[in-house]
Amino acid sequence: MFGFGRGVKKAGLPPGTMVYVGKAAEQPARIDIMDYSDSGVEETRGVSPEQCAMLTRKPDTVTWVNVTGVHDIGLVEAVGKCFGLHPLILEDIVNTQQRAKLEDYNDYLFIVARMFLPANGQEPPRDEQISIILGKGFVLSLQETEGDVFDPVRERIRKAKGRIRGKGADYLCYALLDMIVDNCFRVLEQLGNQVEDLQDRVVEKPDQSLLSEIHALKREVALVRRSVWPMREVLSSLSRDDSGLVDPSLRLYLRDVHDHTVQVAETAEIYSENLAGVFDVYLSSVSNRLNETMRLLTVIATIFIPLTFLAGVYGMNFTYMPELHWRYGYYAFWCAITAIGVFMFAFFKHRKWI
Amino acid sequence: MFGFGRGVKKAGLPPGTMVYVGKAAEQPARIDIMDYSDSGVEETRGVSPEQCAMLTRKPDTVTWVNVTGVHDIGLVEAVGKCFGLHPLILEDIVNTQQRAKLEDYNDYLFIVARMFLPANGQEPPRDEQISIILGKGFVLSLQETEGDVFDPVRERIRKAKGRIRGKGADYLCYALLDMIVDNCFRVLEQLGNQVEDLQDRVVEKPDQSLLSEIHALKREVALVRRSVWPMREVLSSLSRDDSGLVDPSLRLYLRDVHDHTVQVAETAEIYSENLAGVFDVYLSSVSNRLNETMRLLTVIATIFIPLTFLAGVYGMNFTYMPELHWRYGYYAFWCAITAIGVFMFAFFKHRKWI
Amino acid sequence: MFGFGRGVKKAGLPPGTMVYVGKAAEQPARIDIMDYSDSGVEETRGVSPEQCAMLTRKPDTVTWVNVTGVHDIGLVEAVGKCFGLHPLILEDIVNTQQRAKLEDYNDYLFIVARMFLPANGQEPPRDEQISIILGKGFVLSLQETEGDVFDPVRERIRKAKGRIRGKGADYLCYALLDMIVDNCFRVLEQLGNQVEDLQDRVVEKPDQSLLSEIHALKREVALVRRSVWPMREVLSSLSRDDSGLVDPSLRLYLRDVHDHTVQVAETAEIYSENLAGVFDVYLSSVSNRLNETMRLLTVIATIFIPLTFLAGVYGMNFTYMPELHWRYGYYAFWCAITAIGVFMFAFFKHRKWI
Amino acid sequence: MFGFGRGVKKAGLPPGTMVYVGKAAEQPARIDIMDYSDSGVEETRGVSPEQCAMLTRKPDTVTWVNVTGVHDIGLVEAVGKCFGLHPLILEDIVNTQQRAKLEDYNDYLFIVARMFLPANGQEPPRDEQISIILGKGFVLSLQETEGDVFDPVRERIRKAKGRIRGKGADYLCYALLDMIVDNCFRVLEQLGNQVEDLQDRVVEKPDQSLLSEIHALKREVALVRRSVWPMREVLSSLSRDDSGLVDPSLRLYLRDVHDHTVQVAETAEIYSENLAGVFDVYLSSVSNRLNETMRLLTVIATIFIPLTFLAGVYGMNFTYMPELHWRYGYYAFWCAITAIGVFMFAFFKHRKWI
Amino acid sequence: MFGFGRGVKKAGLPPGTMVYVGKAAEQPARIDIMDYSDSGVEETRGVSPEQCAMLTRKPDTVTWVNVTGVHDIGLVEAVGKCFGLHPLILEDIVNTQQRAKLEDYNDYLFIVARMFLPANGQEPPRDEQISIILGKGFVLSLQETEGDVFDPVRERIRKAKGRIRGKGADYLCYALLDMIVDNCFRVLEQLGNQVEDLQDRVVEKPDQSLLSEIHALKREVALVRRSVWPMREVLSSLSRDDSGLVDPSLRLYLRDVHDHTVQVAETAEIYSENLAGVFDVYLSSVSNRLNETMRLLTVIATIFIPLTFLAGVYGMNFTYMPELHWRYGYYAFWCAITAIGVFMFAFFKHRKWI
Repeated sequence: MFGFGRGVKKAGLPPGTMVYVGKAAEQPARIDIMDYSDSGVEETRGVSPEQCAMLTRKPDTVTWVNVTGVHDIGLVEAVGKCFGLHPLILEDIVNTQQRAKLEDYNDYLFIVARMFLPANGQEPPRDEQISIILGKGFVLSLQETEGDVFDPVRERIRKAKGRIRGKGADYLCYALLDMIVDNCFRVLEQLGNQVEDLQDRVVEKPDQSLLSEIHALKREVALVRRSVWPMREVLSSLSRDDSGLVDPSLRLYLRDVHDHTVQVAETAEIYSENLAGVFDVYLSSVSNRLNETMRLLTVIATIFIPLTFLAGVYGMNFTYMPELHWRYGYYAFWCAITAIGVFMFAFFKHRKWI
Repeated sequence: MFGFGRGVKKAGLPPGTMVYVGKAAEQPARIDIMDYSDSGVEETRGVSPEQCAMLTRKPDTVTWVNVTGVHDIGLVEAVGKCFGLHPLILEDIVNTQQRAKLEDYNDYLFIVARMFLPANGQEPPRDEQISIILGKGFVLSLQETEGDVFDPVRERIRKAKGRIRGKGADYLCYALLDMIVDNCFRVLEQLGNQVEDLQDRVVEKPDQSLLSEIHALKREVALVRRSVWPMREVLSSLSRDDSGLVDPSLRLYLRDVHDHTVQVAETAEIYSENLAGVFDVYLSSVSNRLNETMRLLTVIATIFIPLTFLAGVYGMNFTYMPELHWRYGYYAFWCAITAIGVFMFAFFKHRKWI
Repeated sequence: MFGFGRGVKKAGLPPGTMVYVGKAAEQPARIDIMDYSDSGVEETRGVSPEQCAMLTRKPDTVTWVNVTGVHDIGLVEAVGKCFGLHPLILEDIVNTQQRAKLEDYNDYLFIVARMFLPANGQEPPRDEQISIILGKGFVLSLQETEGDVFDPVRERIRKAKGRIRGKGADYLCYALLDMIVDNCFRVLEQLGNQVEDLQDRVVEKPDQSLLSEIHALKREVALVRRSVWPMREVLSSLSRDDSGLVDPSLRLYLRDVHDHTVQVAETAEIYSENLAGVFDVYLSSVSNRLNETMRLLTVIATIFIPLTFLAGVYGMNFTYMPELHWRYGYYAFWCAITAIGVFMFAFFKHRKWI
Repeated sequence: MFGFGRGVKKAGLPPGTMVYVGKAAEQPARIDIMDYSDSGVEETRGVSPEQCAMLTRKPDTVTWVNVTGVHDIGLVEAVGKCFGLHPLILEDIVNTQQRAKLEDYNDYLFIVARMFLPANGQEPPRDEQISIILGKGFVLSLQETEGDVFDPVRERIRKAKGRIRGKGADYLCYALLDMIVDNCFRVLEQLGNQVEDLQDRVVEKPDQSLLSEIHALKREVALVRRSVWPMREVLSSLSRDDSGLVDPSLRLYLRDVHDHTVQVAETAEIYSENLAGVFDVYLSSVSNRLNETMRLLTVIATIFIPLTFLAGVYGMNFTYMPELHWRYGYYAFWCAITAIGVFMFAFFKHRKWI
Repeated sequence: MFGFGRGVKKAGLPPGTMVYVGKAAEQPARIDIMDYSDSGVEETRGVSPEQCAMLTRKPDTVTWVNVTGVHDIGLVEAVGKCFGLHPLILEDIVNTQQRAKLEDYNDYLFIVARMFLPANGQEPPRDEQISIILGKGFVLSLQETEGDVFDPVRERIRKAKGRIRGKGADYLCYALLDMIVDNCFRVLEQLGNQVEDLQDRVVEKPDQSLLSEIHALKREVALVRRSVWPMREVLSSLSRDDSGLVDPSLRLYLRDVHDHTVQVAETAEIYSENLAGVFDVYLSSVSNRLNETMRLLTVIATIFIPLTFLAGVYGMNFTYMPELHWRYGYYAFWCAITAIGVFMFAFFKHRKWI
């Protein structure tokens, strides 16, 4: 179960008031920094807000500041102050139920997106809000809990894979967004496997628990689709950007992510239709099973009913009932009974009722 | 049950004719005033329309005139005259079934919105129309009954919390709209809890009263969504305003409320889909229960039918029925009967019919 | 049952050919005139087309020519000639199944709308087409049968209520449109009452006639919605008018009617959704009733089946059946039978099957 | 059953290759000509392509060339050559499954539309593609088989009814389109009658053949709607035409046809909704009938079950059964049996189960 | 079963990383070349990437380079290098789950489409991604596996059929797209035949396997529709092209393909609606069959129930039961029994229950 769309608790507070609405956090919040340029990388874990603001100001390097744990409102506020962020941004960062959006604050761009983490071994898939601030020479990303989808990006920075080290903060921002959309794909694929699994099970053994599964899956597929949908606009705005923060050469890449976003949405739609199909099959299977049972039972009863009647007839106490005194009356009765039974059975068989 | 969309009584009257269409009011109407600036606040309850118009004209302060009880058409008319409001506005104020809208009358802006009040202890949630007139240095708000969602705003004015005291009438107007949208969230959340509650109950004990509850909830969720939807336009118009009544610096805040509005609408949609799921589960549960019952009953009947037949056979009066005279015929009968019964039971069990 | 969307008979005739497609008319057609200005009103009933054209040309007064009975093609043609109307307009006037539309013929505007008359005492609600031609100093309205929704306007003209006497023909045209939309509300409200009535009856006594009622109501609500929908465009065009026939000061009023139109459409949508809910409840109630019955009957049968079996057993004619000869065997049988019956009853009760 | 949307056979051929995809033709193809002006009409049947091209060039007259039988690809090709038509047009003419469209080839306009012919006596309704080329002074129309909806136009030309003889080729083209749309109305009306007929029959005698009828009708209504829908665009383009082929004075007429097109589409939608209602009633009627039957049968069985039990009881062979030896035991039994039966019958009646 | 929308494996890799996501390939990849001009054709199979790039540069001829087997990432990369393709293009080429799209890279246009191959004898229909790069004087097409829909184009080039040899690379590109859309038609037609086949079978013998077939067919029709839909945009962009690669004279042809695309989409929609109808009929047929059976069985049981009761009555052991001792009591019993049975049978027959 993903967490989006649950629990929206803020109300009645002045604008800019920060209220964390996600799950209660377990680990303390932490700030990590990656400062890199063509010539090298420097990673620091657990820095203070003040340090990180200072580091950010270094020219010629790109600084990626990653804050884990937006439940720590004090920390987020401190970070906000260091980077000179607008109070409304801080409010959005901790109110982790935002739709994906991009806001242009001249000096920096504020992007909110939903990050889906695929199931991993025992760990179930989960989703959280990721806030990205793209400024001159730095990217500030804020996430809810430990664990994200950015490890491949970190790896590429560390090992100078691809072109990332030679590019600016805008490219890093793109790489993060690309990773977010790609992981939506992965999560969708896992959901798709569950859909196929359901498709098989629903015919084999249709019980009511499947119904809840179908609906839960439907909701999750819909959630991925709904979360990814506004990303299209974010990416379009980003490539149309005129704040000077995004290099025009990045447009091709952003269009590529945009295409992926559309693909995610379409795939989600396909799954959604498949689930509708599964639901139809479920209903049909359930009623089919019941019908088979009821029909068979009714057929059994119907075969015995005339037989019982005949037995009743010969149990009557009329003084003059010639059959009763026949020598082989009883055996004749059994023969008749068997004949009737076989005939009815054959008839029902012929009619495909059994 | 909310009241929107019920009872639209006006017809055939000249434009500007005021007809109150809400529930009959219980308390007398009343005008309250808050007059504040950076330097202080002055609150007056129960002023006359004339007084309030006079107060409004004070330069350098922001005056918030709040009219409670638009059923008092005389009072609304008097207020309208003092503030020089157009007759069509007065008509809309008392005809409390308006869609949210913003109308620009050059000297002032007229905003209508629907205000949702969350359930509070014993009190059920309710909704009413709120009309807001934003003029130079004043905000005039008119509501249907005692009790609104603006107490936190009043508190902020009184205690100079946040920036409200240092800002103009446009900021107050924004604060009121923000409060209205935030409370839609709260009401939605309460509805969301009811949806989850239904989700549990529908599996446990699906009776028909649930169906009405599902539909009632669906209607209420739809109502919130429908009421909030046109607010988007109101907020967009407000931030594009060129009447000089809204300061451009307010745009960020208005965009923020706009985002919340979209979020409310999306959340309502999610709940609505969940309710559709609940409905499916309800139908399936009902039919499941019935099917279980009918199948079990039919199985019982089917097991007894051949047994009864056999008993009938040995109740026959044929002269020559050797079994009847066997020493242990009766006991053999019971053994056969038991064997058949057990076999059928096992067979049905095996087929998962019981 | 409204008449819109039934019977479209014209085909294969040259354009401008007039074919009346409504119900056969009963009364003869008639032309009534109201000629008014600030200083007075003059009403004439049953004038000839020639007279009315003459009257229309009076400067300084507004003339409202109302033609009742467009089935009289000759009269309509004569009127058309006097007012210099385009043949296509005449065709539209008598072909009374038009969508609401506004057409600008430079010298005059041609408006078609659907007029809904609420039920009134014994009379059922009905709808007819109303054609309005707004020219310089005159309004020509043509309706299908006796009886319309304009009596309040006539009253306002006669008694100089509101501002109507001091305004021009455009204001009269607005007043008529306002009346038309307002009466859609009234009709909708009556339909809404029927919906609520159905909501109650569907739970109490769900029989199949309700189904037809639901569908009939659905169609009528849809019809009102569909008829009102294109009015939005008519009103927008009217307020954007650049033919000089509509005074800009009227725009506020037209926007007001426009808002009402949207409200009608929304209310119709709400009713439509409620009806969908009623339909669900109907289906569920029907199946519920059946299920209750069938379950109860099956339970009765199931209780008696083992009892009958036992009775069958003791009706057998085995020579050696010790129980038969017990002193209180028969009473023991009754006790056993009662015990089994009570136990089964209790069991079924416990399982909530009864 | 209409033919649109069936059998699309062309694939893999160079553009401009002509492949006829309609039903196999029975009559030979033929070219008819009507050449008319204010002063007279000249009709020639069965001319050769060369002749007709020559005739077309006559100044001061309008020539209507009507080709019946586009299955004769050779003829269509010859006509195409004479009129200098683009190969893609010829391909579209014979590939008779085109959507309605208008293409501007500077010297002429190419219009494709679907023509619906109402049922006529024994003949079922049918549809075919009609291609119209509007050039300077001529209209070339190509249809699939003998029989079209244009006879009223021919009559008007012959008898100089209306203004057609005094107008140009554009007016003729309009007249043809008007006729096409008008006949869609007629076909729709016939379908509408079938819908109403179904509405009655579905309640009276709901058997499964009705289901196929409902779906067939649904498909046909949808087909008319779908065929007419793109005509709106054709007519808009035609009235916006800047090729000089369409006189601006025709715009009013084209707008009129446009309105009719919208009306056809709306009427089709209404029928479609009615059919959805019929389907609901069908389902409900079927289940209602079954339920009535099953309930009645179950009630009968349930009444007899306790009676049979009692009979079984007094068929037991206990030695001591006092009732058996009562003087009027047997009569008492019958009384008891009758009482129980009547009571149960009354009870079931009371519960409305019978 | 088509393959689109299954298996999207890429995630977390730098942009431009090529990952093949289609089915595992069986044959080795291969490059074929057709180099043609008005004067002649030269075909070479199995050239190396370097050769083909060289050939491409020949002026005055059009070179069609066709790569079969995009699973060979090395080959695709080599080709990409020779033609100077952007890494993102290469990624899209091998990630064979792209939506149809057109991207303008100034020097060349990149088109992705989905190619449907109709069933052919034993071979089932299949779909694969086709990537087309249109450059100055060359067309590069890349497909997944051996076998495509372009053989008619090759034939036309070889035999100089139509105008293809005299036209440029843009015309070849158009011819390929035309072929792709035409084959969508063919595949749709085959699906359409299956739909009609289902329509018959569903009434004759409705078993649950049909349900899966209906849903599978629905998915395939939806897939064709969804794949063809974005082609509209591709074709529009192509005809609006301002890169100088597409000759304006091609616009007519592109509009033609565009029209076909719309037709495919509409036909798919029609099939989709037909399938919805088939589904309804399936449900109705299944329940109809069951109902027939259950009703008949219940009628049989109901007829025997009173008979069995009567037999029970005369099996009672009351001392005084006059009927038992009548001379023809037993025969009278049989007469009564028969009369009752016949009467009930006739009654049920009359009520149409049998």
